[in-house]
Amino acid sequence: MTYCVGLLLDEGIVLLSDTRTNAGFDNISSYRKMFTFTDPGERVIAIMTAGSLSTTQTTIARLTEGVEDPENGPVPSILQAASMSEVARIVGDTLGAVASEIGSKMGAMAQNASATLIVGGQRKGGEMRLFLVYPEGNFIEATRDTPFLQIGEHKYGKPILDRVVRPETSLADGQKAALLSMDSTLRSNLSVGMPLDLVVIEKDALELSVSRRIEPDDTTFQKMSVDWSEALREAFGQIKL
Amino acid sequence: MTYCVGLLLDEGIVLLSDTRTNAGFDNISSYRKMFTFTDPGERVIAIMTAGSLSTTQTTIARLTEGVEDPENGPVPSILQAASMSEVARIVGDTLGAVASEIGSKMGAMAQNASATLIVGGQRKGGEMRLFLVYPEGNFIEATRDTPFLQIGEHKYGKPILDRVVRPETSLADGQKAALLSMDSTLRSNLSVGMPLDLVVIEKDALELSVSRRIEPDDTTFQKMSVDWSEALREAFGQIKL
Repeated sequence: MTYCVGLLLDEGIVLLSDTRTNAGFDNISSYRKMFTFTDPGERVIAIMTAGSLSTTQTTIARLTEGVEDPENGPVPSILQAASMSEVARIVGDTLGAVASEIGSKMGAMAQNASATLIVGGQRKGGEMRLFLVYPEGNFIEATRDTPFLQIGEHKYGKPILDRVVRPETSLADGQKAALLSMDSTLRSNLSVGMPLDLVVIEKDALELSVSRRIEPDDTTFQKMSVDWSEALREAFGQIKL
Repeated sequence: MTYCVGLLLDEGIVLLSDTRTNAGFDNISSYRKMFTFTDPGERVIAIMTAGSLSTTQTTIARLTEGVEDPENGPVPSILQAASMSEVARIVGDTLGAVASEIGSKMGAMAQNASATLIVGGQRKGGEMRLFLVYPEGNFIEATRDTPFLQIGEHKYGKPILDRVVRPETSLADGQKAALLSMDSTLRSNLSVGMPLDLVVIEKDALELSVSRRIEPDDTTFQKMSVDWSEALREAFGQIKL
C-alpha cells in the first residue's frame, strides 16, 4: 500500500510520500514514489504515485523520456506543456495508456494494473496547481475549499488534515500537518512505511524549495512523533465528558 | 455505512454505535444498531451491527425470539447459553445462516447480504468478553493486547484509540475515547451519522450501567467535539518541526 498527501497552500505546495511497496506480507520493498521535474526559473513539477508499481514505473519512465527528448519521445514533454492543466492531461493520458496496456496482458486481473497519481507544480507566469489523476487518466484539482489531496491509504491521516489545513496555513505548519497525518497512518497501517520523501515548492520560486528524504532514524521526525503522541494524550486528558 | 466501536477495559465494557443507514445518498434513514439483552443480576449482553440491514434485523429478530421462547424459538436463548463464547457461537451461527439465506435470494449480489457484529457482555461467574463476529459467523475476541474492536467505517477513528485506549483506561476515559473516535469519523464520512447509542457495562454489575441515546443537539457531545478540535489545534501548535 501507499500513503501520499499533497497540500495546496497560499504560500506554496507541500508533498509527502512513503516508500513501502508490497506484494504480500513477505515481499516488501522500498521504492521512491516521489518524482520531480524541474527547469529552474521556468517550471517545477512533482508527481507522487500509488498503485501498481509496474504501471507507475512505466508511466514515470515515459514522462521522463518525453522530457529528455521532446521531439521524438513517446509522450510530449511536461516541461514544455503550455499550462499545468496540460501537464495533468499529458500525465493522465500516459497513465491511462500504460494501465490499459499492462491491464490487457493481465486479463481478469486487469484492475491490479491501476494506479493513481498526485501532480503538483507551477510554470512561470501561471498559478500553482495540484491535481489528483485517476487510474483512467481523468483528474480533479485541489481548490481553496479542498486544499489537500490524498492517494493510497488515506483515511487514518485525514482527521488531522480536516482540522488544521486551510489555504492560509503556513508552509511550516503544512509540512507539520502532512508529517503528522503520515505519522497516524504509519502507526495504524503496516503497509505504509518509512523512509518518507518530502518536497516543498514555494510560490513563484519555480524550483524545489525543500526536497528531503526522511530516514527511519531521523531524530527530528521521531521526536515530532513522540511529542505529538504526548500532546494528544494531554489534550485528551483536558477534555471533559 | 456504519461505525461501531467496543472497548474491553479492566473496569468494564464501553460500546458506541451510530444510527445511519443508507441505500444511496438520497435514501438515508436512522436505524438503531445497538441491541441489549439483560437478565439483571444474571447476565448482560449487547450486540452492535454493521452491514446489510435486512440481514442484521433478521438476525436480531431470531435472537430475540430465541430469548423469548427458549424452548421452541428458532435459535437457542443467548440468555441461557453456558458461557459468553457460547453466546458468540449462537450469534455467529444465526448471522451466518441468515446471511446465507438472504444471499441465496440475491444471487450475484450475495455479498450485499453480509454483516458484521460486535457482541459483548458478562454472565454471572464468568469474565467480561467482547467478540467481533465476521459475516460467515466465525469470530475473534478482544484481549489485553487489543482491547478494542471496530466494525464499519473504522479507519478514521482508529488513531485516537491506538493512542489512548489500554486495558487499564478508566470507564470515563473509555467513553471519552469512543466518543472522540466517533467524532473524527462523523467529520470525515457522511455515511456515519447521529444520533449515537452509548452503552456501558461495569464489571460484575450484570446490568446496563449506562444506556444512553445521544441526539444531534446533545450539548455535552457538541461541547466535547468543539473542545477536542480546539485542543487538537492547540496541541498541533505546540509541536516543533
